[in-house]
Amino acid sequence: MNHVDAVAMLAVLQFIGFGALVGKARGTYGVKAPAVTGSEPFERIYRVQMNTLELLVALLPALYAAAHYWPSLYVAGAGAVYLVGRIVYWRAYVASPSSRSLGFLLSIGPILALALAALVPALLGKTPI
Amino acid sequence: MNHVDAVAMLAVLQFIGFGALVGKARGTYGVKAPAVTGSEPFERIYRVQMNTLELLVALLPALYAAAHYWPSLYVAGAGAVYLVGRIVYWRAYVASPSSRSLGFLLSIGPILALALAALVPALLGKTPI
Amino acid sequence: MNHVDAVAMLAVLQFIGFGALVGKARGTYGVKAPAVTGSEPFERIYRVQMNTLELLVALLPALYAAAHYWPSLYVAGAGAVYLVGRIVYWRAYVASPSSRSLGFLLSIGPILALALAALVPALLGKTPI
Repeated sequence: MNHVDAVAMLAVLQFIGFGALVGKARGTYGVKAPAVTGSEPFERIYRVQMNTLELLVALLPALYAAAHYWPSLYVAGAGAVYLVGRIVYWRAYVASPSSRSLGFLLSIGPILALALAALVPALLGKTPI
Repeated sequence: MNHVDAVAMLAVLQFIGFGALVGKARGTYGVKAPAVTGSEPFERIYRVQMNTLELLVALLPALYAAAHYWPSLYVAGAGAVYLVGRIVYWRAYVASPSSRSLGFLLSIGPILALALAALVPALLGKTPI
Repeated sequence: MNHVDAVAMLAVLQFIGFGALVGKARGTYGVKAPAVTGSEPFERIYRVQMNTLELLVALLPALYAAAHYWPSLYVAGAGAVYLVGRIVYWRAYVASPSSRSLGFLLSIGPILALALAALVPALLGKTPI
């Protein structure tokens, strides 16, 4: 459980970090709340946060559900790929939104793998470990 | 636990599927990242994904918390209604946003039921099963 | 576990309540779906919901993961601060977006505390309680 908790909390803190970058970008690019448009560089950072939100809500349950059936080290390993994928995504998106594919695949891949790694044994009625 | 894991992972994969539809709609309607506006048909699909994000973040904890107190088959049944409700919502929203009420009620209803099914026994100090 | 479930479900229901306020504001300010812009008062309420979504996706896993290592009463106490913080944030944001800092700090503070309270013991390999 420990490896899974560690990776899950790193994913949460990484997401909060992206949120902090959005807050900072509001100042840098002069985008006052409640607006979220009006500056392309701001919107890029905002979209990184939003895309990470979309993925995090899928990653976290998949991570814990997969850990019901598989050794926590494997599960945490998939989560670690996600963490790296998000950094790649962030750097690419801020530089050029059209170059975001690799980082996206490195983030969505582990999520799909974990979700299927939980779904298949659950459907087959395997006993949780 | 298995039924709950199965329904939870289907909800995660359904959400990822809505995300894939948004990606496809970027191409179809020519909405380049980071923009999320500029084409009504694109915005409809994007709003389905966003609304599902809002509900998924409520559904998943309610599902697992309700399973602390109720048989997993009942809990998973409520989750299955949510899954159908999201399909109804998606089809209605894309056809005409003003017709989205039924699908929304079929999605939010199970979430409220599950959240209360966890909250009430938790407040009463019931022993988790 | 009961205290944690109770606080988690209250956070979920609070978020659904903010969503209901957005739905009501669509009528009050004449913002028809799929639009989410066009009226400043509407956008303020919408941003409260979105910001709460961003925080809830971090709060809930941090709450349950921290409960693996710490007494549930302490964990639930941090969650209760978050719940109050969200009410402060909502009231301040709707009155004046620039006054939202206190409510935000009261919400993000408990989340960071809980995430670290789970991360540190997980990294140290502590046995879950």
